[in-house]
Amino acid sequence: MQKVKEMIGSINELDTKAQQQMEQHLNTLTKPLGSLGLLESLAIKIAGITGHTQPEIDPATVIVMAADHGVAAEGVSAYPSEVTQQMVHNFITGGAAINVLSRVSNASVQIVDIGVNGTLQLPGLINKNVRHGTNNMAQGPSMEREEAIAAIEVGIEVAQAAIQNGAKLLALGEMGIGNTTASSAMLAALEQVPVEQIVGFGTGLSHEGKEKKVAVIKRAIEVNQPNAADPIDVLAKVGGLEIAGLAGIVLGAAAWRIPVVVDGFITAVAALTAARMAPLCVDYLIASHQSVEPGHVCVNKLLGLTPLVNLNLRLGEGSGTAIALPIVRSAIRIAHEMATFEQAGVSGAIEDVGKGQ
Amino acid sequence: MQKVKEMIGSINELDTKAQQQMEQHLNTLTKPLGSLGLLESLAIKIAGITGHTQPEIDPATVIVMAADHGVAAEGVSAYPSEVTQQMVHNFITGGAAINVLSRVSNASVQIVDIGVNGTLQLPGLINKNVRHGTNNMAQGPSMEREEAIAAIEVGIEVAQAAIQNGAKLLALGEMGIGNTTASSAMLAALEQVPVEQIVGFGTGLSHEGKEKKVAVIKRAIEVNQPNAADPIDVLAKVGGLEIAGLAGIVLGAAAWRIPVVVDGFITAVAALTAARMAPLCVDYLIASHQSVEPGHVCVNKLLGLTPLVNLNLRLGEGSGTAIALPIVRSAIRIAHEMATFEQAGVSGAIEDVGKGQ
Repeated sequence: MQKVKEMIGSINELDTKAQQQMEQHLNTLTKPLGSLGLLESLAIKIAGITGHTQPEIDPATVIVMAADHGVAAEGVSAYPSEVTQQMVHNFITGGAAINVLSRVSNASVQIVDIGVNGTLQLPGLINKNVRHGTNNMAQGPSMEREEAIAAIEVGIEVAQAAIQNGAKLLALGEMGIGNTTASSAMLAALEQVPVEQIVGFGTGLSHEGKEKKVAVIKRAIEVNQPNAADPIDVLAKVGGLEIAGLAGIVLGAAAWRIPVVVDGFITAVAALTAARMAPLCVDYLIASHQSVEPGHVCVNKLLGLTPLVNLNLRLGEGSGTAIALPIVRSAIRIAHEMATFEQAGVSGAIEDVGKGQ
Repeated sequence: MQKVKEMIGSINELDTKAQQQMEQHLNTLTKPLGSLGLLESLAIKIAGITGHTQPEIDPATVIVMAADHGVAAEGVSAYPSEVTQQMVHNFITGGAAINVLSRVSNASVQIVDIGVNGTLQLPGLINKNVRHGTNNMAQGPSMEREEAIAAIEVGIEVAQAAIQNGAKLLALGEMGIGNTTASSAMLAALEQVPVEQIVGFGTGLSHEGKEKKVAVIKRAIEVNQPNAADPIDVLAKVGGLEIAGLAGIVLGAAAWRIPVVVDGFITAVAALTAARMAPLCVDYLIASHQSVEPGHVCVNKLLGLTPLVNLNLRLGEGSGTAIALPIVRSAIRIAHEMATFEQAGVSGAIEDVGKGQ
């Protein structure tokens, strides 16, 4: 827990001076004031995160954390548990959506086994298995408190290693059959949101499957009585190893002043967990997309984040982060590369009509 | 007009067989059915446009058409008319937003002088000046009918040349001080939409400036009485040279089965104009973004298009197309590069819970 406390203690506020300087710089560029909308807000935010007036986000790294969930035994997913492992193989051989999308977006992908139910030895796979999947939370706690802490620490370590290797932006991805169930339970437990409002069709449930999932989550909360005021208790009782790891990445990145791009519902719940441990974390987050999971809308609202795109995604893996990355990069390159009115010899707005909005 | 008629005559319906094959292929890939949302719809649409089951969109070319507007003399823009020419210089030297964004998105940019009020000789600039800006439509027609047709033909020629040079996707961009005024007038004239519902703050008007703009547009329609049933009449009387040219690009690209990415309000009105001349055009369009211009929402609705991103942009130049291009590319690369369940040895959905949604 020492490492976690250290991280929390070293997270600071955004650099408002760098933000102001970025805003002033954007206002000198050859475009109407504010006409690049959210791109300008992003550039200002990243200046504040990094403390640089000409920040960089490349190289960018998507970290996909994989783990199994004992609760999958309750039939809460459209896919069998072995798919977690099979997809880790697919990630390593480059055939999954996140691999393709990261190639398009010029991001590297790191795959972390933080809790797969099996022993994987694959080239390039980061082996940080804390335990071989969680217990079935419908019958008792997902894991021990110490294991949840260990998984958070794995996230911190992985983030730190990526940053030391040069990463200037981290993006969150996950793979774990059953993990929308764990994430829904965590959100319900942390924020007292009714389970029915959170649960969606996951990666492809039927209406009956969805009802079963609601019942299982209610039972898990009933059986475990997670303490809303203690995010680690919630993680241990109804969470997952990859969710804990992703929360650790957020803590580590925020401590190191590196922007973190959040994907869908599961990564957003991980970010929320980190934010409940260290509220300043929120300022370091960029929401990539709005997924079709109803819980995701809820978490983004709680975090105060406006997603960059809304493409009806419901895949996970970090797919939304890779899709949104070129938008983040565009914001940064605009700040670096556009000519100013003075440099380009372009006339400014006419005084009396130019003061609008 | 012969060239325009030829183009209209050679536009065909989408290839539904290629669409079906694409959909079937997407359903074999290692992801839950339909979980990549709009990316999958895009891949299917582009299969239908191109008639290929493994279509390509690269190399992609953004074509920025620049022209001046006589109506700028009425004070309807926050910027003076000379900015059109100054920005053409900026495009050519690579300092404008569209240059930066296209570099991020790996698109080439072509700049066309289709009606700038001046004589420009710049390296790389495509000189197709039909006339040195339009007349002030508040006093009479913007241009002659023959000039509007000539400008449409320029668009067809430029599209054809780009396609012959290898472009697999065309994106629409524009520069022209006063062109939201012309576009608003065109939309009001073509679709009998009340002017007040269409007009926004352009690139930075005050509230008074906006009111003046509404009055000018109403006067232009009153003075010219454009014929809603005749898109070329509307173009000539209250349109602009770059709007006509962009409509020509849409006709040319659709005839050649090449997808066309639409930017903001002005390019959307150009696409609408093309669609009123050749309704099948609509199927070849991809809306990149939803801008803050109220008229843009209206045109996208009329065209039945769902924009890929909503980033509060109000710049033009093709900026939204460059930002959205990586999303389009992602859709295509997914279809090309993802492993199938069989190839990756990943288990499919469980029968009884996997039939949801």
